[in-house]
Amino acid sequence: MRETEVYDVLIIGTGPAGLQAGIHAARKKIRVILFGHPQASALYRAHLENLCFVSGKRDGQELLSIGLEQVRHFGATVVEEDVVKTAQEGDLFMVETESGRKFYGLSLIFATGVSRKGLGLKKEKELIGRGVSYCVDCDANFYRGARVAVVGNESAAAFGALTLLKYASKVYLIAKDLKVAPELEKELRESQVELLLGRWIKEIRGAERLEGVILDDGHPLELDGLFIELGAKGAMELAATLGVMLDPEKFTYIVTNKRQETNIDGIYAAGDICGPPLQVAKALGEGCIAGLEASSYAIKKRKALFNS
Amino acid sequence: MRETEVYDVLIIGTGPAGLQAGIHAARKKIRVILFGHPQASALYRAHLENLCFVSGKRDGQELLSIGLEQVRHFGATVVEEDVVKTAQEGDLFMVETESGRKFYGLSLIFATGVSRKGLGLKKEKELIGRGVSYCVDCDANFYRGARVAVVGNESAAAFGALTLLKYASKVYLIAKDLKVAPELEKELRESQVELLLGRWIKEIRGAERLEGVILDDGHPLELDGLFIELGAKGAMELAATLGVMLDPEKFTYIVTNKRQETNIDGIYAAGDICGPPLQVAKALGEGCIAGLEASSYAIKKRKALFNS
Repeated sequence: MRETEVYDVLIIGTGPAGLQAGIHAARKKIRVILFGHPQASALYRAHLENLCFVSGKRDGQELLSIGLEQVRHFGATVVEEDVVKTAQEGDLFMVETESGRKFYGLSLIFATGVSRKGLGLKKEKELIGRGVSYCVDCDANFYRGARVAVVGNESAAAFGALTLLKYASKVYLIAKDLKVAPELEKELRESQVELLLGRWIKEIRGAERLEGVILDDGHPLELDGLFIELGAKGAMELAATLGVMLDPEKFTYIVTNKRQETNIDGIYAAGDICGPPLQVAKALGEGCIAGLEASSYAIKKRKALFNS
Repeated sequence: MRETEVYDVLIIGTGPAGLQAGIHAARKKIRVILFGHPQASALYRAHLENLCFVSGKRDGQELLSIGLEQVRHFGATVVEEDVVKTAQEGDLFMVETESGRKFYGLSLIFATGVSRKGLGLKKEKELIGRGVSYCVDCDANFYRGARVAVVGNESAAAFGALTLLKYASKVYLIAKDLKVAPELEKELRESQVELLLGRWIKEIRGAERLEGVILDDGHPLELDGLFIELGAKGAMELAATLGVMLDPEKFTYIVTNKRQETNIDGIYAAGDICGPPLQVAKALGEGCIAGLEASSYAIKKRKALFNS
């Protein structure tokens, strides 16, 4: 790998924490790149009125586009794709996006937020662990030879369906409005996944265990497993692959110290992924620290590796 | 003390950290009060261009007035006076302002920032500890029977001069544009402090030790000690009085955990006073957390104390 192909700071996430990290890192005049769909941020569909210096009730979508402009203005690159794979390769961190592109960096910041999304249907919560799951990578193994469906419009759902092909006998992907990179859509179409596009789930059926779902066109589907994968590829899975430590109680958050360092040298985290309070102001503060710390780390590391 | 006279959250400081703490606390519909001159914030004379969602190069003064409007909008009270004394009285924290008013609260947040101000004169740094000092409360004792001057326009300088009367044989206060509460100005005028108003220092004299200064009107002043007290009463002194732990190396910062708790129950700190990076985004993040944590603490405490 040539030195010029290596980024200093890879940032997964383009919400408040990722953008603020990007701004602080890019201002150091180093190579900074962000990954993610801004519309995946929890802020995107929200209104903000409790951030100091940003007065009135402001539209999240509008604010995110301001932030994107800022981070680009300071010289960072933004790749509006989900990251679907992470790895540590020697001295470098690798991230692979949904279109299959790979990027290498000296430091890595998780700023993915947390998914708080469910379908909001009756029985959804009640049947968790009894047929309903929010994590393909965690639970696929329980569904060997079974009939399963994944519901979701983004890369998490698409990759989830592809992964499940290795376990289940039948895999459906239910997506009202599939939004994935063309390469990924092609892979799906060429696979054994049965695509139910333009449709969604209106009812979950089952008493003791999941029995099936009713689609919004009235069509019933018998199922052993339903994977609800709304949003991007779970940050937890990306982090866990790298050995990043999660909170020991619920495995819902990445553990960091006050410098936003994780247990792995060169990996930082910021924002909602680090736990409550899930507030924009906190995300900005942690993003600022992570951006500065990752920059310092990368600058030292670049010197050590490339003598420059 | 009647319950209705007790605030839930006292916040010392009206810069980014204090304002953000105030916004989050006030939104809990509890009694929140902030103290401080907004123009004392490091942001006041600065420009800001690295805060996400606030685009362009923005004027600090303008931003602070937006923040003040926000915190008032959510129901907090702002007292634009310096705090000159703090104490713990039973279950309550007490703060006294420069006009002599006292306020009581169930929790307390230090968001005072740090003073990075000097006169910027030759020999100023060189003679620190050899006649030049930035802390009356720390060094007054070394100037028993000596001729000293305090330079500064705000309450820190005024209180410094009054304190030094107990030690030094002669005390001058040099202030280009004295801005203190009327009560404090009256106390100064009735004291033995010699006021050199409308004047400033243009030169510091001395080789091994401080010998004196030259005022901007050309007038020389022979001195054993010069106290540079630009800005508000030092937060460090206010914190130290309450037993709040400072960083063990330099005693420059208040030590907090990730919840912005200090070592004293009910006392929190946020922003520059907690140490680097001295960035607005970090101050907002810490202010958010301190505001929320202090609110929870106060709500529980009020229940325990007043059964309400």
